[in-house]
Amino acid sequence: MPELSDERPIGIFDSGVGGLTVMKEVMKYLPGENILYLGDTARVPYGARSAETVLRYSFENAEFLASKGIKALVVACNTSSAISLDMLRKEFSFPVIGVVEPGARAAVKRAGLNKVAVIGTETTINSGSYKRAIKAIDNSFEVTGVACPLFVPLIEEGWLDGEIVHLTAMKYLSSIIDNGASVLVLGCTHYPMLKKIIGEIVGIPLIDSAVETAREVSSVLADKGLLCQKGNMPVREFFVTDSPEKFVSTGEKFLEHPIKRISRIRLAG
Amino acid sequence: MPELSDERPIGIFDSGVGGLTVMKEVMKYLPGENILYLGDTARVPYGARSAETVLRYSFENAEFLASKGIKALVVACNTSSAISLDMLRKEFSFPVIGVVEPGARAAVKRAGLNKVAVIGTETTINSGSYKRAIKAIDNSFEVTGVACPLFVPLIEEGWLDGEIVHLTAMKYLSSIIDNGASVLVLGCTHYPMLKKIIGEIVGIPLIDSAVETAREVSSVLADKGLLCQKGNMPVREFFVTDSPEKFVSTGEKFLEHPIKRISRIRLAG
Repeated sequence: MPELSDERPIGIFDSGVGGLTVMKEVMKYLPGENILYLGDTARVPYGARSAETVLRYSFENAEFLASKGIKALVVACNTSSAISLDMLRKEFSFPVIGVVEPGARAAVKRAGLNKVAVIGTETTINSGSYKRAIKAIDNSFEVTGVACPLFVPLIEEGWLDGEIVHLTAMKYLSSIIDNGASVLVLGCTHYPMLKKIIGEIVGIPLIDSAVETAREVSSVLADKGLLCQKGNMPVREFFVTDSPEKFVSTGEKFLEHPIKRISRIRLAG
Repeated sequence: MPELSDERPIGIFDSGVGGLTVMKEVMKYLPGENILYLGDTARVPYGARSAETVLRYSFENAEFLASKGIKALVVACNTSSAISLDMLRKEFSFPVIGVVEPGARAAVKRAGLNKVAVIGTETTINSGSYKRAIKAIDNSFEVTGVACPLFVPLIEEGWLDGEIVHLTAMKYLSSIIDNGASVLVLGCTHYPMLKKIIGEIVGIPLIDSAVETAREVSSVLADKGLLCQKGNMPVREFFVTDSPEKFVSTGEKFLEHPIKRISRIRLAG
């Protein structure tokens, strides 16, 4: 019996460029897969929006990718994952993989003590989704969440080191150090860009959801017989809701790969 | 002949809470006017979006307020004013007042030398609209524009003084000091919240578009016979596209007045 090959694309969405850190890892684990990436750049950032609005935006993003015939959906945005994963799993029949559960699993596995810290956007932290996901694995864990609203704008401004970033990181992270957490989950797809400075300040291992999520995507596709087995050149296509120019220039830094096939689309909402 | 009294409301829109600094000044100049304020909080911020997207959002905001029967429209967002004023004036028959022209006029009037500096969002500065507005009054003026993308997130985080804000402001403003400008236009409705620190750093007079725009609204309404002459208690109503809770708590700091009648609406786009 010949091995099955499912050449339908994997769909990935994020509010903007951040999810490209997840796509980069998916490309490493699954170099032959076709990928469609949607960045909702006309409505980025999601991190301070209400749960109701994040739900609506997530649904519209997923609906667009569903219309393109994807075989699985990766929600490469922590805020969307924290709020909308249950809804998306009810609404769509393909597997839906978020970034929260893989991050939570890795945190539990690598924590020396039963104390984990999570940093993310306001809406992610307020949702309590990391706390729930970690406690669902091991209820004895203590989880501290800290919202870091300025990290995304600093990264988007290209300020990745220097005094301003250091002082801002110190201000947000000092309570984590005091609290004695044994690992820190980077609960926002932008944050790996600040890995160096965050790691130096907290001095504990960091969990990068991007890497964990790519592993999860790989194993879910394998389990469900959805892998693309052919060794041909994969097609990677990008869609954005605002102008492509800025997305390409910032995005190539996140993806560490050229962004070629890109078009602007208009979502319902 | 009895004096005419036009009791239709003035419409004001902004991407979020920033335009409340303009509304506050309008309330001082015209305390008896009914006002409808729309904050497009589900799509804030506009400052880094493309001109095409800002045009579309501005049109949708104006269309909503037009449907409520306003007698004049105040575009209390520098980015929207910089991009969409011509379009709005073509599309709607009521007077449309932006924040760029009043700010430009005040800058020319108060500049000691023919050198003016403007700070604003990326899209406002890249549009060159302040430069055009100032040169249309006096072509001999030199205009330097500096985009300050981190000011809005810092203000929304509530960090209005301290080392991080000071260092950030120094980084953005040092070229203005070197350039020898004689006045600085605060080309974003959020920036008056940083007036103190910006003023200390640049050491030149600051032009607050909010105050200038309120004066313009008052004189346009008077010229066109659109003032509300009755001395009754004005109705001030607020509309937002995301949840009202956060808008109210941040907004009351900007408006320095309670925000009571508020509802969430859904725009077309």
